[in-house]
Amino acid sequence: MKQIIVITGASSGFGTLAARRLAHTGHTVYAGMRDTTGRNAPQVAAANKYATEHHVDLRAIEMDVASEESCDAAVRQIISEEAQIDVVVHNAGHMSFGPAEAFTPKQFAELYDINVLSTQRVNRAALPQLRKQHRGLVIWVSSSSARGGTPPYLSPYFAAKAAMDSLAVSYASELTRWGIETSIVVPGAFTKGTNHFAHAGSPSAVVTRWPSACSESRSDSETIGSSSTMRTRRCRPSICGNCARTISAITRAAAGNTKRTVVPLPGSLTISISPECRCIIP
Amino acid sequence: MKQIIVITGASSGFGTLAARRLAHTGHTVYAGMRDTTGRNAPQVAAANKYATEHHVDLRAIEMDVASEESCDAAVRQIISEEAQIDVVVHNAGHMSFGPAEAFTPKQFAELYDINVLSTQRVNRAALPQLRKQHRGLVIWVSSSSARGGTPPYLSPYFAAKAAMDSLAVSYASELTRWGIETSIVVPGAFTKGTNHFAHAGSPSAVVTRWPSACSESRSDSETIGSSSTMRTRRCRPSICGNCARTISAITRAAAGNTKRTVVPLPGSLTISISPECRCIIP
Repeated sequence: MKQIIVITGASSGFGTLAARRLAHTGHTVYAGMRDTTGRNAPQVAAANKYATEHHVDLRAIEMDVASEESCDAAVRQIISEEAQIDVVVHNAGHMSFGPAEAFTPKQFAELYDINVLSTQRVNRAALPQLRKQHRGLVIWVSSSSARGGTPPYLSPYFAAKAAMDSLAVSYASELTRWGIETSIVVPGAFTKGTNHFAHAGSPSAVVTRWPSACSESRSDSETIGSSSTMRTRRCRPSICGNCARTISAITRAAAGNTKRTVVPLPGSLTISISPECRCIIP
Repeated sequence: MKQIIVITGASSGFGTLAARRLAHTGHTVYAGMRDTTGRNAPQVAAANKYATEHHVDLRAIEMDVASEESCDAAVRQIISEEAQIDVVVHNAGHMSFGPAEAFTPKQFAELYDINVLSTQRVNRAALPQLRKQHRGLVIWVSSSSARGGTPPYLSPYFAAKAAMDSLAVSYASELTRWGIETSIVVPGAFTKGTNHFAHAGSPSAVVTRWPSACSESRSDSETIGSSSTMRTRRCRPSICGNCARTISAITRAAAGNTKRTVVPLPGSLTISISPECRCIIP
């Protein structure tokens, strides 16, 4: 059955890939992104071109998850056009890496905003409609760090994703009485196929007397931490198997085909875990 | 061996109780609290009186964990008086309860600040000294919600504590190379013996068409959620077994006597889990 789907952070990475895949399977997909007339105008044009060429219903929509007003406006637009929202995908996120102590509290707060408060803004905009429908699905793109994966030097991101995962579980139990289901997708670590590492932030401060590994992690975008901790290398092909699995998990969840693997609250919560990318070598 | 210990949020609850217990066992304990000449002047007087009457080394210190300057000043004072810090206890925290959707993003951010950014401020103030010493212990008072416990209607608090727990794990692995150990204490749910529920925040917004259980949760301070979810009742005696176990876990950890029960990173991380309070009835 055709679904009305909105996915945040769809200007790149998982967001773009999942939006296209979902549109291909016959759904109406709103690809949320900010600054659609400026920085992301090329992404809007690309989405339109893709929709035309492939005869799919993919629609870029202005949706800055850092702004309540923007989220509210996007949801109003979708409801005015389609009168319903079936699936909300919380995909937008941002990462920083560096030693925990080197990040300012403000930087931690910023990561919390983009990864967690963003979902709260979208939920408060969209959930009244889903509750009114007594039906819907909320998909959260979490992180393997919230389920045991622990690459080094990602503490502000991991803290935020742990919070997002916790919030998803809270919402799952609170929303089930409205007929709204929840699925948490847990991608493994990966370094290519999205811009996650390429766009990652870094600490504004430098910790004195920290091992040289930290500066190395900045000088070589493909190396995180020292050899004593963990190294990463490029995946081949350009979208590694893990990214593909993640997109698959998102699209399966959106189609209601997610296998319940972990913490199956009856009828309400599913969690999909993509295995760690094989391109991470200890 | 006598330790120099600083514990945050020591004006009440676990903080006060753990500070007193640790002072009794022979340590020098700095009981961090804000507004020591105003709102918490009575708590300062109480700490001083307690120290005099029991001949213990318990010292109230101005330490507002919402302020980098205050955290820095407190740490400077401790180092100027004792030239070392052996144990840092991240105990300060605040809770809110209500349906997730009813909280504004700003309220989520405030809970993150008091429960997580607070620890980052204290760490950035204190860790340079601990790294300089090549020795120390950081104790994090987490929440059972981060390890599977899920009472309802506490989403902003649970999200923050999940982030704090994640941050503790990140720090644990990053600090072990400096000889700094980490212990995460995981108290179960409890409703008395501290002011946690009495002082809890609530949403600024009311979700329309939400079941009446939510308003009930505000009208009866002893009832959270509806009978279909979970009810709480008073513990007897006034400090329930669970609170006592938590204080015991903090003091054991501070004394280096914590049994490694979960995720024992070699030599660096211990996690103590207090069982759920028996005063929670499903």
